[in-house]
Amino acid sequence: MALIVQKYGGTSVGSADRIRRVAERLLAAQRGGADVVAVISAMAGVTDGLIKLAQELSPQPSAREMDALLATGEQGASALVAMAVNSLGGKAVSLTGAAAGIVTDGAHTKAKIAHISPRRIHELLAEDFIVIVAGFQGQSPEGAITTLGRGGSDLTAIALAAALKATDCQIFTDVDGVHTCDPRVVPEANKIDEIAYDELLEMAGAGSKVMQSRAVEFAKKFGVGFEVRSSLRDTPGTKAKAAPANMEDVVVRGVSLERKQAKVTICGVPDRPGCAGEIFSAIAAANLSVDMIVQNASSTGMTDLSFTLHHDDFLVAEKILTPLVSRIGASGMTATSGVAKLSVVGIGMRSHAGVASRLFACLGRAGVNIQLISTSEIKIAVVIAEDELERAAQVTHAAFGLARPRLATTAADG
Amino acid sequence: MALIVQKYGGTSVGSADRIRRVAERLLAAQRGGADVVAVISAMAGVTDGLIKLAQELSPQPSAREMDALLATGEQGASALVAMAVNSLGGKAVSLTGAAAGIVTDGAHTKAKIAHISPRRIHELLAEDFIVIVAGFQGQSPEGAITTLGRGGSDLTAIALAAALKATDCQIFTDVDGVHTCDPRVVPEANKIDEIAYDELLEMAGAGSKVMQSRAVEFAKKFGVGFEVRSSLRDTPGTKAKAAPANMEDVVVRGVSLERKQAKVTICGVPDRPGCAGEIFSAIAAANLSVDMIVQNASSTGMTDLSFTLHHDDFLVAEKILTPLVSRIGASGMTATSGVAKLSVVGIGMRSHAGVASRLFACLGRAGVNIQLISTSEIKIAVVIAEDELERAAQVTHAAFGLARPRLATTAADG
Repeated sequence: MALIVQKYGGTSVGSADRIRRVAERLLAAQRGGADVVAVISAMAGVTDGLIKLAQELSPQPSAREMDALLATGEQGASALVAMAVNSLGGKAVSLTGAAAGIVTDGAHTKAKIAHISPRRIHELLAEDFIVIVAGFQGQSPEGAITTLGRGGSDLTAIALAAALKATDCQIFTDVDGVHTCDPRVVPEANKIDEIAYDELLEMAGAGSKVMQSRAVEFAKKFGVGFEVRSSLRDTPGTKAKAAPANMEDVVVRGVSLERKQAKVTICGVPDRPGCAGEIFSAIAAANLSVDMIVQNASSTGMTDLSFTLHHDDFLVAEKILTPLVSRIGASGMTATSGVAKLSVVGIGMRSHAGVASRLFACLGRAGVNIQLISTSEIKIAVVIAEDELERAAQVTHAAFGLARPRLATTAADG
Repeated sequence: MALIVQKYGGTSVGSADRIRRVAERLLAAQRGGADVVAVISAMAGVTDGLIKLAQELSPQPSAREMDALLATGEQGASALVAMAVNSLGGKAVSLTGAAAGIVTDGAHTKAKIAHISPRRIHELLAEDFIVIVAGFQGQSPEGAITTLGRGGSDLTAIALAAALKATDCQIFTDVDGVHTCDPRVVPEANKIDEIAYDELLEMAGAGSKVMQSRAVEFAKKFGVGFEVRSSLRDTPGTKAKAAPANMEDVVVRGVSLERKQAKVTICGVPDRPGCAGEIFSAIAAANLSVDMIVQNASSTGMTDLSFTLHHDDFLVAEKILTPLVSRIGASGMTATSGVAKLSVVGIGMRSHAGVASRLFACLGRAGVNIQLISTSEIKIAVVIAEDELERAAQVTHAAFGLARPRLATTAADG
């Protein structure tokens, strides 16, 4: 028998009306002949409200209690969805993460799933219940409530799909899938029908936040195929899998954009062991997230070291590093806000030369200056001025043929 | 070692400031040398908000899901109190009812506590934690979240005090104890220092709602002494116990008032088995709560049957009973709203004659007409016109000497 796991995010359950629509969708899936397990996030705004309350009480609330507090958001939303199913004549029960058998380690606010014992879910499915599981949470071996970190409901859904050997896993969200580029920037952007886990990871890490990265990594590790689709419209979304059928044909799957970046360059860093370590230890100690790190080969005994970070962290980083620059014997530091990152992503680029040259050439023709370059096996990222990002995105999207009308799959999209 | 259970209601944790004050009080109790267990209600307004959400989804939400939803209120408030203790430098952990070992039957929304396994609480107390338990909730043998009904946090506190063999159980509320009468009606009303369980039950059932009745019954059954006191001021409250020291001296402990009552009299009811049963089955089926029931001895083969109920239920009762009156062969029905109930309560009245006569005489002197009379072993209740209630309360309070200055205990009252 088919078993479908459906995950609904906070905006999808943001009001009584929307909850009712989720319930209808779950019932439709069950009528279609499948066992149905839903994973529910907290209603939009609820988690932020709880965090605000906690911060009124303590600048750094204890992690254990933060988990006990925040887990109530998903627990409440799950109960409401179950009520809605029942009031439409269906049969549903809600389960907390703990009751659903999700056991994590004890790392509060960022717990890792240790294992899932889905016995209770199977029993309820056998009695024809739709099982509504509170996302984002589990239970430590000591029995304390834990949470999986921001976006953790995605991980709950993927992990449950793996544990239950689900035939389908559908991640419902407020976008209708992953696109070749942000449609607000590039109107010709297409929805991607199929995407490799690695591509989705690079797209997510590069700003297209449709899924929590850890959830995608988990799906990749356990080979859980899933579909990202709209909770508002009934159209097919984007299917993530190990290797899409058209993998060889598609060199670049999409162009990912990240705004509001800042760039820091430390010049004349002595080329000796420990210098880079000292710089990034200071940054990590201040809890700042660094994105790209670039260091050039050195021939003079001195090198330049650049990195990017979110512009909200920019002033703190500058303040921390200023005294450090002289202490490690570097010659100076330049720090610039107002930059952005553009990445082209595709597992096909592994076997194709020429992606870099095509990217750099098209940006050059458009007069966009490249400030930093960084590459991974399936991604090329450049840092450019933020006010040139739109133009750069449009020419890149066109240069890689992403705007061309799609073939067979287009008709099914309606 | 002393072990104190403290229960805080919804208004006592209604804001960040108040939560902080609760935390300070818990820490003070711990510094006083006691192990401390707190039982916390949902923040004021939260439960009503959740109920409203549920009702938007379903006119009759499923009881199981209602419990899962409502339990989040107490769970969240408990986590916030634990955070507040921790941020003040203390050590606290919050536990859901289930984690605290509270096992109930499976009667959702009105579960009964089956037993408590306080192992986890003892472990945490041994590690010097203040243990914060979410009130109002437990877990069924099947592992579903259950709730204990309105005011259930009182029951949680009393039951935990029994299971933990607590040396003290303190019920913190927004009043500073139980009074000889409602001070808004009788300004000379005194706080009662000690009260018998049975007296408190009759006072509670008669409108002085400082405690959930089930909690008082539980305390009586297991001999758990407790104190009702103010969370806003640091003054002694009212201590409830099996038999207060001054039991013999005090004939009437207090005067309890209940407004907004309605009275229904069915006249000429045939005096045969089954008639009363038929009437009250119809009322129970409509989920109406009846308070007093009075039936006079019959000599004519016909009798009059009267009962009181809350005036909100008045029209429904009238509608249900109108067709029933002729079906059972009664001669008619009169139904009056705008009445109130006044009760004098005291376990001392068991051994004292003359309470009834003194009550009736003082009301007669004041020109208050008595419409119905009903008595229990420790209570005499009369139904009178609601607009005469204040006058009746004042003369009754005076007639039983409740306003006299108290003796020894007064000095300790601060």
